[in-house]
Amino acid sequence: MSKKQILLNAFQMNCVGHIQHGLWTHPQDRSIFFNDLDYWTSLARTLERYLFDGIFIADIFGYYDVYKGNVDITLKESVQLPTNDPWTLVSGMAAVTNNLGLGITATIRAENPYAFARRVSSLDHLTKGRLGWNIVTGYSDSGARGLGYGELEKHDERYDRADEFMEVVYKLWEGSWADDAVVVDRTRRVYARPDRVRAIEHNGAYYKSNAIHGSSPSPQRTPLLFQAGASDRGRAFAGKHAEAAFISAPTIERARELSRKIRKAAIDAGRKADDVKVFAGLAVVVAATQKVAREKFDEYLKYANPEANLTHFSASVGIDFSKFDLDAPIDYGVSNYIQTSSEYAAERRFTVRDLLREKALSSHYHVIVGDAAQAASEIERWIDEGELDGVNLSRVVVPGSWEDFGQLVIPELQNRGRFKTAYGEGTLRHKVFGYDRLQDNHPAARYRFA
Amino acid sequence: MSKKQILLNAFQMNCVGHIQHGLWTHPQDRSIFFNDLDYWTSLARTLERYLFDGIFIADIFGYYDVYKGNVDITLKESVQLPTNDPWTLVSGMAAVTNNLGLGITATIRAENPYAFARRVSSLDHLTKGRLGWNIVTGYSDSGARGLGYGELEKHDERYDRADEFMEVVYKLWEGSWADDAVVVDRTRRVYARPDRVRAIEHNGAYYKSNAIHGSSPSPQRTPLLFQAGASDRGRAFAGKHAEAAFISAPTIERARELSRKIRKAAIDAGRKADDVKVFAGLAVVVAATQKVAREKFDEYLKYANPEANLTHFSASVGIDFSKFDLDAPIDYGVSNYIQTSSEYAAERRFTVRDLLREKALSSHYHVIVGDAAQAASEIERWIDEGELDGVNLSRVVVPGSWEDFGQLVIPELQNRGRFKTAYGEGTLRHKVFGYDRLQDNHPAARYRFA
Repeated sequence: MSKKQILLNAFQMNCVGHIQHGLWTHPQDRSIFFNDLDYWTSLARTLERYLFDGIFIADIFGYYDVYKGNVDITLKESVQLPTNDPWTLVSGMAAVTNNLGLGITATIRAENPYAFARRVSSLDHLTKGRLGWNIVTGYSDSGARGLGYGELEKHDERYDRADEFMEVVYKLWEGSWADDAVVVDRTRRVYARPDRVRAIEHNGAYYKSNAIHGSSPSPQRTPLLFQAGASDRGRAFAGKHAEAAFISAPTIERARELSRKIRKAAIDAGRKADDVKVFAGLAVVVAATQKVAREKFDEYLKYANPEANLTHFSASVGIDFSKFDLDAPIDYGVSNYIQTSSEYAAERRFTVRDLLREKALSSHYHVIVGDAAQAASEIERWIDEGELDGVNLSRVVVPGSWEDFGQLVIPELQNRGRFKTAYGEGTLRHKVFGYDRLQDNHPAARYRFA
Repeated sequence: MSKKQILLNAFQMNCVGHIQHGLWTHPQDRSIFFNDLDYWTSLARTLERYLFDGIFIADIFGYYDVYKGNVDITLKESVQLPTNDPWTLVSGMAAVTNNLGLGITATIRAENPYAFARRVSSLDHLTKGRLGWNIVTGYSDSGARGLGYGELEKHDERYDRADEFMEVVYKLWEGSWADDAVVVDRTRRVYARPDRVRAIEHNGAYYKSNAIHGSSPSPQRTPLLFQAGASDRGRAFAGKHAEAAFISAPTIERARELSRKIRKAAIDAGRKADDVKVFAGLAVVVAATQKVAREKFDEYLKYANPEANLTHFSASVGIDFSKFDLDAPIDYGVSNYIQTSSEYAAERRFTVRDLLREKALSSHYHVIVGDAAQAASEIERWIDEGELDGVNLSRVVVPGSWEDFGQLVIPELQNRGRFKTAYGEGTLRHKVFGYDRLQDNHPAARYRFA
């Protein structure tokens, strides 16, 4: 049996501090240039040179104001504030690449589905089918205040709304224009055939839309769908809609458990276990030797800011850790999130001091440190024992972490037959799954133009 | 007194047929490639080579379904259907240019102001301050149905909403982050100063937003503001907000009348007459000699489709002209729009046959036909006698019409001292007005961070 090919995304955000906080102060880190288009086009070229399958760009509306009840550390360390719109980057990066997938996060609560569907189709056209969409329902109270909804909806209601939003955009992407609608016949003067185009009809609980989709069918129609829901309701949503699920797991065991749950959710939704590619977030610090890699890690630690990581983590779990005594045990039971993300949580009580130590470099992902062979072996182990398909590789310093990985780890994975040596053909979906359009077992299929 | 420099935008739309309908069937017209990024990057390079001040991209939600009560001609001749999202083009065009202004239309009814403000700031950063926004309230019933609002709001209420939308985005762009908020001090570990960033407060009739703006101050903060409102209420809005107004006038006399009205509206709003640059839409068919230009025009006419122009015009004025006898006089009094846009309307009754003849090439703009000297003289006359600042140059064939203009008319205007020979410095606003940020007499100024 041939070994499973490992899928690889660079995990990025249109901001300074993304996951490994404080590293913007490192002399080699270029994240402070995120406002510049050159930073993004240069990065896109680099990732394509190393054959990354895609760049996956997170996003958030709102900001981290739980820790100490303010945004002081958030702003001083630029913990995802400011964060610019990731959709604005797509055509710029597409202009300098040919194969790199462009997976972009959009928050349903911020979008009108008719306008959003057109934006996505436009970009799928411009990228010749390289677009992915990471579906987010939105979880920040400050984001809800900014977007004007006051209080966040209850968790499950957010997913009900998201399910309906998907229905609207599926109707627009899959059902408004037939495949043979656009004929571009100059002699007969027929750009598109009126009998092959129709207005969608949607009058639901959250959304109304009754019109022809503004864009003609793009290469993928529906973009490649990513999702990262961690709750049971979120996983049910992912099982129904997602073609790629992104998980956050501190251990391989936890990754395997989450991967199995997601694949079960897909099966429960009438799809196949491998219709969803599962990606884990990882960081890798790699160098020519194990010793140099460890030195590099220790050097990074000097620039990291555990309090900034704790600021991010406090908002993620909704607990202001500044109120705890450094050595007092925390009742982690209050947050399901902590139980799922912390090695400490599964076995024992932990303290803020534990958290600060654990989160010295990152509040979220496992960090692999080693030479190329070690890093490759560890990644293989995550993929195989974790029952994963790919890695969302977060950055410690940018673009250094991805450069190091491309120069050292990718050739090693290629030698082991675990990583492609050239891009596949066609659209992003074709590269990942071997077909351009969603299959019949996907819920979008029922809205196709008959 | 030195002669007034003429400002010049290419007037474009992310679709096939924009103003001169039917020309997509011309063998040299490339508008059918509008789905491709290359079409746009190539066009942006061309426009910058000829020193166009900007590309101004129109947009619409919805489509033209008034003529015969259907979209048959609209689809067959691709009369602005499909139309893709123009915002998706910005970073792609910015990646291959350094000076070209990028003026993009957004419809207020389709946008959440908090999300929109961030998108605009992100693009103003990426383009280093080359962004313009053409403010549109939305006028299509089909667009309203697509966006889920059912019936359009009454005309004046749309502008009330738009005024409040502007208030929200001004607060975000001008008032959330102080100029000295972002310090990027790696040694002291201060990316931004918390005391120089604040949440805006807005709780109005149409919008609520109470949060910190997601983006730090971009080069222009508020993008250069375009507006094209033709009603009294629309002009009052333009007089208050716009830095560039775009008018549609069939004659120089009408252009002058509209220009004076807009400048009066600016003065009424406490601004100066020349705080608003007035652009007229024009098309130019130019060639080496007058004779060849006329032949070129006649050749274009063979590909033009008057019925497609009438389809566009029917929707613009809300009258289904297919119901009229070809030679029966039309009571043009039903539509103020016809009075303002048709040479026929001012003086006498007209028929559908008149309309078809008048609109053989275009339903909207005056077409200048001649050699370089004639075209330059005619443009000078429009600018000087029409009391205008610039031209939005629509295309008959794309990119041929702009290429012809760049090769023949621009050198002639340069020889006459009416067109720059190099780009000015800095942001789009700096190039047009000599300053980067809105001045104190603009309503946005009152929301500045104190």
